[in-house]
Amino acid sequence: MCPPALIPYKPRNPKTRLSSLLSLEEREQFATAMLEDVKAAVKDAMCSPVLVCSELFDSEDVQVTITDTDLNGSLNAILPQNVGPTLIIMADLPLADTASVRRVISTDKDLSIAPGRGGGTNAIFMKEPQRFHVDYYGTSFLKHMKIAEEAGLSVDVIDSFRLHTDIDEPWDLAELLIHGTGKSRAYLEGLGFILSAEKGRVGVERRR
Amino acid sequence: MCPPALIPYKPRNPKTRLSSLLSLEEREQFATAMLEDVKAAVKDAMCSPVLVCSELFDSEDVQVTITDTDLNGSLNAILPQNVGPTLIIMADLPLADTASVRRVISTDKDLSIAPGRGGGTNAIFMKEPQRFHVDYYGTSFLKHMKIAEEAGLSVDVIDSFRLHTDIDEPWDLAELLIHGTGKSRAYLEGLGFILSAEKGRVGVERRR
Repeated sequence: MCPPALIPYKPRNPKTRLSSLLSLEEREQFATAMLEDVKAAVKDAMCSPVLVCSELFDSEDVQVTITDTDLNGSLNAILPQNVGPTLIIMADLPLADTASVRRVISTDKDLSIAPGRGGGTNAIFMKEPQRFHVDYYGTSFLKHMKIAEEAGLSVDVIDSFRLHTDIDEPWDLAELLIHGTGKSRAYLEGLGFILSAEKGRVGVERRR
Repeated sequence: MCPPALIPYKPRNPKTRLSSLLSLEEREQFATAMLEDVKAAVKDAMCSPVLVCSELFDSEDVQVTITDTDLNGSLNAILPQNVGPTLIIMADLPLADTASVRRVISTDKDLSIAPGRGGGTNAIFMKEPQRFHVDYYGTSFLKHMKIAEEAGLSVDVIDSFRLHTDIDEPWDLAELLIHGTGKSRAYLEGLGFILSAEKGRVGVERRR
């Protein structure tokens, strides 16, 4: 079984909340490095990555480009066409590894969801995608649990900090420097980022 | 097997970073509710809770009270005396559940560690506690990995957001309102806390 792994991806001006630490060009390169890490984890877990982009992106990956709608509209246009089990996973999860993705796709329930911080949904696996639709933004985890319940679908909540940790804010970079092993960690280190301790909390600083 | 679960606990003036939202009395009650949730998870996983306190605490639990040293000193005085497998778990993990604690104590390695946010160590299980010592504060996760390596101990890193999520800051309370099921969530709800969305991030507000 090689289910498709839909990865929504925004190539231009990504990760604006990191603007205080990274230039536009660096944010684009960093987002690409995180995407590479997610794709590596997904491929090792025997899924086939498919990028879902809002604009054409220079890459050799399989791409679906939808320009006239938002994330929910794009995904909900694709799901009814996928006749077999389908994974959706976010591109900003550089701590994702083979084991955590495998836990998501090997559920014995109808659906599995890996929640993100603040009630987000970082990965969702549907055995019958035509029976489900997505509703991202806000506390999408709670919305997805409700959609599943209303559709009579059983749900597995995947307890993984690797999939819980999306990289949005400057302090999130510390998690990547502590637990990351892939290209995005190397990219940050190449820019001179190191761990630092301020007021008892661990953060990052840029040395050069 | 019913290994002891050492739970460091500070009964007086806990969780000062929540002072903007909770009074001193409320912080003490909230800390007690979180401790109850951790104890329930630990007991359901067949461990025996032992509170490690810096002062005498009015409770029916087994207690070790050490007043003349810090957290590391206290635990490192206890570990050499524990002849069998021993768990240390923090008291501010109200999302801990039976399954996540079981994953920690059922490792086939010498040691298992559940990292906390920012490089902390939220749970650690030692099959031979006399071969290990703790070094909390800062990036203790990295320090513990190094101590294990130097002692020749194999380590399992437990990938759990339930054990990763320690409750320190106001925005952490959102995680508890989303994923909690125990006494500490009920306590917050009883005080009027609800989820709120500000600037796209989910947080909490107190309605009364």
